[in-house]
Amino acid sequence: MREALDGKPDEPIRVGVLGARGRMGAEVCRAVDGTDDLDLVAAVDEGDELSAVADAGARVVVDFTTPDAVMDNLRWCVDQGIHAVVGTTGFTGQRLDQVRDWLSDRPGVGVVIAPNFGIGAVLMMQFAARAARFFESVEIIEQHHPRKLDAPSGTATYTARAIARARAEAGLGPAPDATKDEVPGARGAEIDGVRVHAVRAAGLVAHQEVLFGTTGETLTIRHDSYDRVSFMPGVLLAVRSVVRRPGLTVGLDALLDDG
Amino acid sequence: MREALDGKPDEPIRVGVLGARGRMGAEVCRAVDGTDDLDLVAAVDEGDELSAVADAGARVVVDFTTPDAVMDNLRWCVDQGIHAVVGTTGFTGQRLDQVRDWLSDRPGVGVVIAPNFGIGAVLMMQFAARAARFFESVEIIEQHHPRKLDAPSGTATYTARAIARARAEAGLGPAPDATKDEVPGARGAEIDGVRVHAVRAAGLVAHQEVLFGTTGETLTIRHDSYDRVSFMPGVLLAVRSVVRRPGLTVGLDALLDDG
Amino acid sequence: MREALDGKPDEPIRVGVLGARGRMGAEVCRAVDGTDDLDLVAAVDEGDELSAVADAGARVVVDFTTPDAVMDNLRWCVDQGIHAVVGTTGFTGQRLDQVRDWLSDRPGVGVVIAPNFGIGAVLMMQFAARAARFFESVEIIEQHHPRKLDAPSGTATYTARAIARARAEAGLGPAPDATKDEVPGARGAEIDGVRVHAVRAAGLVAHQEVLFGTTGETLTIRHDSYDRVSFMPGVLLAVRSVVRRPGLTVGLDALLDDG
Amino acid sequence: MREALDGKPDEPIRVGVLGARGRMGAEVCRAVDGTDDLDLVAAVDEGDELSAVADAGARVVVDFTTPDAVMDNLRWCVDQGIHAVVGTTGFTGQRLDQVRDWLSDRPGVGVVIAPNFGIGAVLMMQFAARAARFFESVEIIEQHHPRKLDAPSGTATYTARAIARARAEAGLGPAPDATKDEVPGARGAEIDGVRVHAVRAAGLVAHQEVLFGTTGETLTIRHDSYDRVSFMPGVLLAVRSVVRRPGLTVGLDALLDDG
Repeated sequence: MREALDGKPDEPIRVGVLGARGRMGAEVCRAVDGTDDLDLVAAVDEGDELSAVADAGARVVVDFTTPDAVMDNLRWCVDQGIHAVVGTTGFTGQRLDQVRDWLSDRPGVGVVIAPNFGIGAVLMMQFAARAARFFESVEIIEQHHPRKLDAPSGTATYTARAIARARAEAGLGPAPDATKDEVPGARGAEIDGVRVHAVRAAGLVAHQEVLFGTTGETLTIRHDSYDRVSFMPGVLLAVRSVVRRPGLTVGLDALLDDG
Repeated sequence: MREALDGKPDEPIRVGVLGARGRMGAEVCRAVDGTDDLDLVAAVDEGDELSAVADAGARVVVDFTTPDAVMDNLRWCVDQGIHAVVGTTGFTGQRLDQVRDWLSDRPGVGVVIAPNFGIGAVLMMQFAARAARFFESVEIIEQHHPRKLDAPSGTATYTARAIARARAEAGLGPAPDATKDEVPGARGAEIDGVRVHAVRAAGLVAHQEVLFGTTGETLTIRHDSYDRVSFMPGVLLAVRSVVRRPGLTVGLDALLDDG
Repeated sequence: MREALDGKPDEPIRVGVLGARGRMGAEVCRAVDGTDDLDLVAAVDEGDELSAVADAGARVVVDFTTPDAVMDNLRWCVDQGIHAVVGTTGFTGQRLDQVRDWLSDRPGVGVVIAPNFGIGAVLMMQFAARAARFFESVEIIEQHHPRKLDAPSGTATYTARAIARARAEAGLGPAPDATKDEVPGARGAEIDGVRVHAVRAAGLVAHQEVLFGTTGETLTIRHDSYDRVSFMPGVLLAVRSVVRRPGLTVGLDALLDDG
Repeated sequence: MREALDGKPDEPIRVGVLGARGRMGAEVCRAVDGTDDLDLVAAVDEGDELSAVADAGARVVVDFTTPDAVMDNLRWCVDQGIHAVVGTTGFTGQRLDQVRDWLSDRPGVGVVIAPNFGIGAVLMMQFAARAARFFESVEIIEQHHPRKLDAPSGTATYTARAIARARAEAGLGPAPDATKDEVPGARGAEIDGVRVHAVRAAGLVAHQEVLFGTTGETLTIRHDSYDRVSFMPGVLLAVRSVVRRPGLTVGLDALLDDG
């Protein structure tokens, strides 16, 4: 394990990107390049040697590869004492346990694994969970481009579950609804008791609205995402945070409180 | 038939209200009172004599009574040569034919019957029908208080049908939608092929959004109604128009072009 | 001081209302009446004796009176060992210090003074302050009925200041803005460096939108208030909380975390 | 003049693009290629010969070049009997007169010149002008990326003027506004008496909302544009329409009624 990896406080953090030729990886390279406090020192993809990352002195690796490749990459990073920020999907509870196990032997190394690097989306979910217990009614309206295969979106389902948990903890029963005469589907899908409506239209990208209501007032939290570059501020935040966060961190939520 | 009913151009129009103690009728009385160009000369309700209206020299009657009473009222108005604006519900095709028949004997008398006096709602429906053929995608999201019994609302259903007609005339097929994995209801109800989502929450009153989308852009038409006073501008418009519109007019649409 | 005021955990809380014939006070009476866990035991207004409240065994007083009357009322409540929830305006720092001073002699008594009992509005401001440091851009758009005298609204000004503080703490500079050619006023008012736009239109009630933006995404927090009944859930929350909150609490924020 | 240019009804329309390597021109090439009823037969740019367009048998030319080049191009198209759709800017009244003059000698040739090919934006402006006379209040809120130099946007200014004309024709006075205490700029810019607010934030692209209000209701027309591809449906509509529209047509409005 190389002590040098911890760097000096005001030196740029040296960053290597795995999956650098993929769509997300390429954006990460551009985003790192555009900062003053991070240095892109290695950009590797399939066929390249991982050792290039260590040779370049990377202190943090960002991994946007594939579920097949990511575990080997992570094992190697932890062994090398290189912190890792991971956006690759496919992390089961078993995989997370495996990463924790590896990290237990390397107490100084940090790994951040996040299913969604959109800071706006993460804040929306946090705010929704927090507001939930103050409003008798809540519904979710998500809006996406018409090429999307699932309805509702994963983010909407995740939000609905977080809201349902908060309502249950607060002892709230079902939201009021006198509907007697419904054309099938009009009232949306029910996810843990929360109604979710999925709109699909050309021209849309990825949008979600959480509508809370109580006597005489409503509170709406809306997130609009137009581009995969919207994930870059979250990736950069994770790169800056992971060097101060030994062990495994799952999700951006905790990092948002780091400042 | 009294010639005097036609009045002079710059004299206030004398107005009588039937159902004057009901919620809508009372609002109409207040609204007429609040204008400079209309005079409230009679306010009658169940138990009062209709003749009071004629005695007061009313030139226009506004009827917000009940389906049981309205046909007798209308018959009497037409006989008296008094123009009528009707917001009472329950008008079947047969009833409309009956009114046309009565009016054929009184060529100078006008009757306006409208299911919705909200100018904003009527414009929303007109704009939606007009925009329909330029966008490959369209969905309707209506939002109401949770005491509402039907989902979707009558206005949403009516709007969906108008859009479906316009799409058919333009030769548009179904809107694109790749959904394969749907939690039942997520994609809303289908009204003549148009997806409609009904949101119910405490704090809401009556709202509707029509979302059109095509490559790279969306157009949204939204109507928010907070109060039954929102129908009053439409009622006043009808009162001012009916004196220049002999025969039967159904719906506010035509009046909106009178200016 | 009457020990009995602390009651038993599952007995209804006995509530007295001061200013009970005013618009807000009357709503509070109705709201308390509509609950299972609160009992309206006294409703007094100008000309009535305060002692009626004590005679009725009120454990909590709600005060929506006037700046002239409120300090005497509060002094009396604290002396009697009755908790107080205060929506009356006009509390300067000096007045708050006076209340704290009175309370120091009565360690078991709680007083909650809040400038805004709208839970949705309070959450909006909390969320806005929390989101502020994650977005390079932020603007506020408030929308009110056209009879409003001030622009922007007090809530918008308060929100802008809270956002400005959070941005300063996070070391954020001014939001990006390349505007060179501006029709005067187009870019809104500047409150501590945050742009605020005030829309005035018939049909509106009281609405506010806080729009945050960063690369490729926006987050919007919107509050719509339709009616003064929207303040009642906040008043009821304060009544239930004050019995467990000795000392002075200013603003609803702290109560929102009580659960 | 080549008679063959008029083609047969069910043959694809042969299209040439001038300025084909510019950003808009390249999009037009892609858009034409993506249709069944249009054939891209020539794509020329600076340095290429215009004659390539005629040689390829183009029946319609689309011009997204520069104010310097466009008049020569148009002159040549009209001479050749080739219809033209023009998105190039810089058309003064004098230039339009010149084009009309050329066309008077070629009665079968059509030219469409439009400052904005976004169908959604054009419909928004049409609907706004139509709704204007039914609402006592109206304000415009436009929202753009922070690199924009002018505030408000040209589209907002154009919309405000159209609304002001419609209000004047309907005899409407100023919108109600009791504001007495205004932080400078809070109430926006005044364009012909219509208040316009310009929001600038990272993450935004190009958005505009027109808010109409009257007693108890509001009507909102909103346009969101995410991408220059949003202009393509308007360009394709113009290509299909121009072959049936001899003479000069300015703006998309008229074409929207062609079907």
